[in-house]
Amino acid sequence: MAMIGAGRMGQAHARVLLGLPECRVVRVVDSQAENAERVAAELGAQASIHLEDALQDPAIDAVIITTPTPTHAGLIHAAASAKKAIFVEKPVAHSLEAGRQAVMAVERAGVPCQVGFQRRYDPAYARAKALIEAGELGRLEGFRAVGRDPTPPKLEFLKTSGGLFVDMGIHDLDLARFFLGEVAEVYAIGGALSNPELREHGLFDTAVGTLRFEGGAVGTVEVALRTAYGYDIRTEVLGERGRYHVERDRRPDLTIYDARGGSFDRPRNFEERFPEAYAAQMVAFAQNLHAGKPLSPTARDAWHSLRLALAAQEALETGRVVRVRDVGGDL
Amino acid sequence: MAMIGAGRMGQAHARVLLGLPECRVVRVVDSQAENAERVAAELGAQASIHLEDALQDPAIDAVIITTPTPTHAGLIHAAASAKKAIFVEKPVAHSLEAGRQAVMAVERAGVPCQVGFQRRYDPAYARAKALIEAGELGRLEGFRAVGRDPTPPKLEFLKTSGGLFVDMGIHDLDLARFFLGEVAEVYAIGGALSNPELREHGLFDTAVGTLRFEGGAVGTVEVALRTAYGYDIRTEVLGERGRYHVERDRRPDLTIYDARGGSFDRPRNFEERFPEAYAAQMVAFAQNLHAGKPLSPTARDAWHSLRLALAAQEALETGRVVRVRDVGGDL
Amino acid sequence: MAMIGAGRMGQAHARVLLGLPECRVVRVVDSQAENAERVAAELGAQASIHLEDALQDPAIDAVIITTPTPTHAGLIHAAASAKKAIFVEKPVAHSLEAGRQAVMAVERAGVPCQVGFQRRYDPAYARAKALIEAGELGRLEGFRAVGRDPTPPKLEFLKTSGGLFVDMGIHDLDLARFFLGEVAEVYAIGGALSNPELREHGLFDTAVGTLRFEGGAVGTVEVALRTAYGYDIRTEVLGERGRYHVERDRRPDLTIYDARGGSFDRPRNFEERFPEAYAAQMVAFAQNLHAGKPLSPTARDAWHSLRLALAAQEALETGRVVRVRDVGGDL
Amino acid sequence: MAMIGAGRMGQAHARVLLGLPECRVVRVVDSQAENAERVAAELGAQASIHLEDALQDPAIDAVIITTPTPTHAGLIHAAASAKKAIFVEKPVAHSLEAGRQAVMAVERAGVPCQVGFQRRYDPAYARAKALIEAGELGRLEGFRAVGRDPTPPKLEFLKTSGGLFVDMGIHDLDLARFFLGEVAEVYAIGGALSNPELREHGLFDTAVGTLRFEGGAVGTVEVALRTAYGYDIRTEVLGERGRYHVERDRRPDLTIYDARGGSFDRPRNFEERFPEAYAAQMVAFAQNLHAGKPLSPTARDAWHSLRLALAAQEALETGRVVRVRDVGGDL
Repeated sequence: MAMIGAGRMGQAHARVLLGLPECRVVRVVDSQAENAERVAAELGAQASIHLEDALQDPAIDAVIITTPTPTHAGLIHAAASAKKAIFVEKPVAHSLEAGRQAVMAVERAGVPCQVGFQRRYDPAYARAKALIEAGELGRLEGFRAVGRDPTPPKLEFLKTSGGLFVDMGIHDLDLARFFLGEVAEVYAIGGALSNPELREHGLFDTAVGTLRFEGGAVGTVEVALRTAYGYDIRTEVLGERGRYHVERDRRPDLTIYDARGGSFDRPRNFEERFPEAYAAQMVAFAQNLHAGKPLSPTARDAWHSLRLALAAQEALETGRVVRVRDVGGDL
Repeated sequence: MAMIGAGRMGQAHARVLLGLPECRVVRVVDSQAENAERVAAELGAQASIHLEDALQDPAIDAVIITTPTPTHAGLIHAAASAKKAIFVEKPVAHSLEAGRQAVMAVERAGVPCQVGFQRRYDPAYARAKALIEAGELGRLEGFRAVGRDPTPPKLEFLKTSGGLFVDMGIHDLDLARFFLGEVAEVYAIGGALSNPELREHGLFDTAVGTLRFEGGAVGTVEVALRTAYGYDIRTEVLGERGRYHVERDRRPDLTIYDARGGSFDRPRNFEERFPEAYAAQMVAFAQNLHAGKPLSPTARDAWHSLRLALAAQEALETGRVVRVRDVGGDL
Repeated sequence: MAMIGAGRMGQAHARVLLGLPECRVVRVVDSQAENAERVAAELGAQASIHLEDALQDPAIDAVIITTPTPTHAGLIHAAASAKKAIFVEKPVAHSLEAGRQAVMAVERAGVPCQVGFQRRYDPAYARAKALIEAGELGRLEGFRAVGRDPTPPKLEFLKTSGGLFVDMGIHDLDLARFFLGEVAEVYAIGGALSNPELREHGLFDTAVGTLRFEGGAVGTVEVALRTAYGYDIRTEVLGERGRYHVERDRRPDLTIYDARGGSFDRPRNFEERFPEAYAAQMVAFAQNLHAGKPLSPTARDAWHSLRLALAAQEALETGRVVRVRDVGGDL
Repeated sequence: MAMIGAGRMGQAHARVLLGLPECRVVRVVDSQAENAERVAAELGAQASIHLEDALQDPAIDAVIITTPTPTHAGLIHAAASAKKAIFVEKPVAHSLEAGRQAVMAVERAGVPCQVGFQRRYDPAYARAKALIEAGELGRLEGFRAVGRDPTPPKLEFLKTSGGLFVDMGIHDLDLARFFLGEVAEVYAIGGALSNPELREHGLFDTAVGTLRFEGGAVGTVEVALRTAYGYDIRTEVLGERGRYHVERDRRPDLTIYDARGGSFDRPRNFEERFPEAYAAQMVAFAQNLHAGKPLSPTARDAWHSLRLALAAQEALETGRVVRVRDVGGDL
């Protein structure tokens, strides 16, 4: 495999890939030579600043795209043309139009493509999904998601990130679709509660919304850029026969009892919450590729999650109820 | 004290009052003689079918009104005129206009009046409130509430109950105000997911909504008439410095480990979730009366919770964002 | 009923009795007139310094004995002679010989007698017991109990209390018998870890031990006079099909998430851990008396718990494995 | 590195090593060629049936010994003579005498040696240890450990395993020493509760015991070969200022609420409970070797854990309190 992109997410993925014998990375490409070299050294791979070194190498079966979002669609296009299998970090593109073209390129080329919604591979989410597929929850009726990051990115990043629901909430909205299918309508409100400077740029650090699913279920979603108490990811699926609640409340597995009562530490970031998921999604990518099995989620699937995120963002920014199908045409 | 109303809620209150030496009930009034007699016998009190027997008895300091909602306002008026202190079950009235008149009657007569939002007296909610008042949470930023009943009332009751947010969600909305102050705007969607018959009558069994508080915070609320898994009441307050989470997940205090893993029972209804709260609110009523201290929540406070519930109900039924101040004038 | 003993435990019981309409206390006896008067006033009863005022009053059906342990046996004897039903705080007596005579007096007189092992009436313990009786756990194989008090009593009390296992551990040992039947052998070690002064008087503040049950199961028990983290009562029963774990870890039902992670308060003493149990045991006493049903645990049952406690104490003090049947003869 | 032993534990370690780029295994030795070949293929290493192929290869820095216990001491001796660094699965040897010679060989040769008590590297245990070292718990006063396996090994294995405390309880006893230092005295009782056949061979499937530490603290330990409810590992350290409780109760992070209440799955075996620990101990081995830092636990340290386990086993089998220093001489 080749890794394209050796910045922040690329480095995070490199740490995961190091531990996965299923995934052998032989080349790392980054336009910044020193990034490429650093990660290549870690992975025992060769560094390049030219994409073509990876795409034209017949020994490379697959590329892992971990560059900034605006480059995703173009890289997918290039990789598909070179007939490489593709793993690309979420979101599949920075816009629906770019995403549509990427999906088309992938499907036309017939290359396998998986988008990095790692939560679907977390043991708890995967277990919930399996039970739901087996009908254990009966008719699906509701959804609730909380996704709160401990610390906001820099203002410069936020200005170009596409917004709270697109950069961050997309994980929660992807889970909504993963568990309950397509969303018909979305409404959202929010604010810049912790950092008034965001307000001047029309940005939000907190948002809450409602989802009406095509199947009739209703749900809520809450996202925030900042908490005082660490990383807070909770997801619930409600059905005719019960409720599935996914949460990693305590990490490590230590409870301290002292004069103040009981207390425990919590996961502080996605690397502490989702180590198994990041590994499992890459293992699934490699193993399914190898076995010729379908990859998941596909670019098409991820395009719908992007559309939902853009619809939520539009609702948040306009104060209007947004019909998801009215956003960005269709595939 | 006298108890007015010996139906379902009256009987529930009687069971609580029996255990409270602070509250001596000497008369039970109900237009249905047998209800009155049954509860009177339990409480060692006299039964009456005439309200005046209670109101004109100078030995009676206070009345506990546990009749159906539509009668609340009239009874408050009558009790205020008779200069009795008043405890009345929530909501304070069936309409804002009736509620306004009740508030006026109480305030004009100068009688103490407490409305039965028992959750405010639950040890966990009361502790959270005390910490918030002490500034432990810093600036308040968010709110989340789930209120799900195990089993829906009969259709006949639902048709006249005022709707999901008025009959049930009012507890959660009262907590929203209790913790974060007044709500500016509310939006809600829902459905009749478990019982299509409700749909024919324009009724909902599930609703989710968003709240925008006057202070800038945002929140969500979710209510349902039915779960497959018992009584589900959870409330969260989010602030600059953390998150307070109130939930009684396990009752009794027994975890069973067997071939299926771990499992536990849950509170199944308000009597299993809130026994301490129902007792504490009546004790507070009696003790504060006796000490000449103010009661809480007052009729005026409760009127605002009713208005918020009606606003939420209007949002749910119309699909529009509702400004709370636009509902029902002001006090 | 009459209450005999208005000291520390009497006052705790009075607070419970106040809330129980099933139990009407008409007389409070204490050799210290001011104690008697204080509790009598609280309960709306008459105060006495003479036991005979209670025992010779034909309007009194039952006595509640909450005096210091050394007086229990004599008072049981007197009450039994007066044909009063008896509730007596644990332990049934200060010595096995005195206990034996008390049991004999009760059984000869044919009066109902219940000993105050309130935990048996806690909802979680009672639920575990019901499941075990129904065979849900299969063959019983093990037991584990932790009983740790937050704060030690005064040294003066400790010197005469009979020791750690007799005053405190007896609750845990009574549960061992309640769930798994009689104990054949006990071994224990301990120390005066927090207070070296205890050591000078041959006293312990911490002890751990093993139990071998007559049915073949084995278990552990741990008791301590002091923790830094509040009241810690945990009990486990292990069987062929699983494990029952009883613990009230969090009270009130509030979890706080802040910069330090998650935290929660804990029950701090028996009144915060066992309010339902203290009420339920008195209600059961009154209701079973009234219905002519047998009381539980009986004086005979409680005598065996005392013997087990004395055996554990002997093991602790001698460093030897003690056969329970070798202690204090038999009944 | 070379791996010596490709049986059950070797295969488990191979799965861990596969994910650890820090540890490059180039040779796998097993007297059973097919085991060696299978694991070698997995690890991309060469297979051998001759130990010397590993020991005489100058490219090999370290050996990982995962053979059956009786061979540990001899292999340690051989590896030490060949000046290889050593990782050896617990216990360090099958007898104290063999262990002593292994320790001597290691120390004489001056080779680094780490024994596989992986729990010390689990994030929760490591965090507890760090807090204790920092004095957060104050004076250490108590210890409690539960170690229960879900399914017993075959009778044939049990007959030669050295007994319940040596094969299994040694992990819990090693933690006792890790946290509170050396144990002075041990007492234990047990039975063959689930499988009477064990009894015929003088074997136990359940044991409970007490520990008296040299520093004055006391504790309990409980081990079992079988539960109906999965893998149950709990450890508590009690101190002047509180209690540290280590337990992984729920895995995956999913709670299911349905008509039966709440329920959750549990880790079912050591691979589900300790994946992080198995990885972390090997990473520490590799990194500390590379950095020239001391390894932990050393063979000497592990010898003391073995002595404690043998003392506990002797107590269990003889019914006597055993002084640990009286067992097997000293180092």
